[in-house]
Amino acid sequence: MIRIAIDAMGGDHGPEVTIAGLQKVVERRPDVRFLIFGRDERVRPVLDKYPRVAEVSEFTHCEISVRMDDKPSQALRQGRWKSSMWKSIEAVKTGDADVCVSAGNTGALMAMSKFCLRTMASIERPAIAAIWPTVRGESVVLDVGATIGADAHQLIDFAILGSAMARAIFAIERPSVGLLNVGVEEIKGQEEVREAGRLLRVSNLKTMDYHGFVEGDDIGLGSVDVVVTEGFAGNIALKTAEGTAKQIGEYLRAAMSRTVMSKIGYVLARDAFNRLREKMDVRKINGGVFLGLNGIVVKSHGGTDDEGFAAAVELGYDMGRSRLIDGIRKELEAFHGRDGKRRGTTDVDTATDEE
Amino acid sequence: MIRIAIDAMGGDHGPEVTIAGLQKVVERRPDVRFLIFGRDERVRPVLDKYPRVAEVSEFTHCEISVRMDDKPSQALRQGRWKSSMWKSIEAVKTGDADVCVSAGNTGALMAMSKFCLRTMASIERPAIAAIWPTVRGESVVLDVGATIGADAHQLIDFAILGSAMARAIFAIERPSVGLLNVGVEEIKGQEEVREAGRLLRVSNLKTMDYHGFVEGDDIGLGSVDVVVTEGFAGNIALKTAEGTAKQIGEYLRAAMSRTVMSKIGYVLARDAFNRLREKMDVRKINGGVFLGLNGIVVKSHGGTDDEGFAAAVELGYDMGRSRLIDGIRKELEAFHGRDGKRRGTTDVDTATDEE
Repeated sequence: MIRIAIDAMGGDHGPEVTIAGLQKVVERRPDVRFLIFGRDERVRPVLDKYPRVAEVSEFTHCEISVRMDDKPSQALRQGRWKSSMWKSIEAVKTGDADVCVSAGNTGALMAMSKFCLRTMASIERPAIAAIWPTVRGESVVLDVGATIGADAHQLIDFAILGSAMARAIFAIERPSVGLLNVGVEEIKGQEEVREAGRLLRVSNLKTMDYHGFVEGDDIGLGSVDVVVTEGFAGNIALKTAEGTAKQIGEYLRAAMSRTVMSKIGYVLARDAFNRLREKMDVRKINGGVFLGLNGIVVKSHGGTDDEGFAAAVELGYDMGRSRLIDGIRKELEAFHGRDGKRRGTTDVDTATDEE
Repeated sequence: MIRIAIDAMGGDHGPEVTIAGLQKVVERRPDVRFLIFGRDERVRPVLDKYPRVAEVSEFTHCEISVRMDDKPSQALRQGRWKSSMWKSIEAVKTGDADVCVSAGNTGALMAMSKFCLRTMASIERPAIAAIWPTVRGESVVLDVGATIGADAHQLIDFAILGSAMARAIFAIERPSVGLLNVGVEEIKGQEEVREAGRLLRVSNLKTMDYHGFVEGDDIGLGSVDVVVTEGFAGNIALKTAEGTAKQIGEYLRAAMSRTVMSKIGYVLARDAFNRLREKMDVRKINGGVFLGLNGIVVKSHGGTDDEGFAAAVELGYDMGRSRLIDGIRKELEAFHGRDGKRRGTTDVDTATDEE
């Protein structure tokens, strides 16, 4: 049985979408249980419409909801201890839930997650990992937005976190890992990236197959199972890929509706186009995973629909089932040594709005 | 009449591709003249096959060819003063050519261009600008790989360089300019990017319409005419977009060949698919422009074919015709003041292989 804490109030639409998403999950994963947090008068009426969800859920009323435009510091000040976002994260900390899912605002969710769960020993900053569809299947890409800049040791931490996640959800024993760079030669790129490459090569970890540098086009081609980068470049890569997919979709639509022949062709090939659309559907890959904390938090897109929220919850399900945290802890210990404390604890109390 | 210096030996295939590319240009731009540099025994036989190119060209034999895998320092040591790459850049310096085009290796071409042409007064480091196809048309994106990291002043220089290029080739009086960032809020992102944004907003330049921050997906959507970023993130964005386009091409091919119906649909809609392929054809947008030097150098992809090389040459043609350098000089003077010398001259003598 996998227990998932749900911040029902997160996202642009709140319970109407999040609870409807849970309905889809419960149809597909019968051994799931939900701990739902939110405002009574908003959540109860929706739960009444989805009795199958209500059946496997425990609901807790929370007075406060974090707004989508709250700054992280504001959310922490007003929502700590009592908001639906906080309560759902706390359920992971207390062990009541295996994982937490929220479509609430990223900055607030990250600030609260850090404050409540704390970073794992030896991890300086958590990362957000995305599942990226590729020609070969799927890859894990991190960090896609929690950090701005990362030194060599942080990049190595990301490699360990990402390979643990890849092992958990792709069932690959020794995932291949690449460092994102502007060229594949060892002399190229940022000093931090080159240093991380040198360290990964000499340490020859048992838990990952370090492949070397990869470039932007390697991500979509699926050259490696895990792509490691700092959050600025990672976020720009992710958004650029989304933009390119939308752009090509526009081109395709325009081309297919131009002549009578192309319209007939479109009708005949409709199944093929539907398959393509499904492949390109960002809802299906919705969900960024916060890694490096003492618990798993999944962030769903705020603007997603029920299908997208369900995908994020199912990603959380897979991560919860894999006992990911235990695995990561072992690998970090193996790499950093028993004590684990490399550079003190993290700066959880200084959560600023820049993140 | 536009005079273009051609490094005929550059690229994976040499004169067979470059001269064949010139044939396409001369058919489309009758007022073009070429100064061709390369090894006699390689270039002459190909020129004999393209009499129309030979007719409008002046050929100069060069003993040395820079190899595709030469390091920048190596290329400078061996190829300075006498290689076909050097000679074609030098033709721009002497004023014999309006612009230079080479498909040779990027590092060597940049090192030689800096050494020969020097950076413009007030410009610290040159940038490589790419033309990016968008839903709305085309945008200029820079830097896509000449720099690693940039401070606020360099980002502003890139904004000035990019908007001058956009004005030249898109014929827009006051191009819109966006700074690439991980969010559109003013509090987000790298300190350098935020500082550049503040400066661009207060200086309110006549020659550009500063739009604010843009994200990765804004590039393909064409939200602004000019996207400004440092070279690490810019290169990763460019390569990621290329990878995503290839990936979707793969999906489409697989989807269309799956069933008899989809195959028939494909045949009927073949014109539409050809249009789409043309839109996605990277050869048509081949050509990175080195900006910030006292002369225009266009870098073609090394592995391109004659059509791709022709596109790079035609980009050079458009840039040469627009008297771009004079325009940029005026704008930099207007922004930095008459003297122009902000922080000494550039480090041309310390060209290293990291670039």
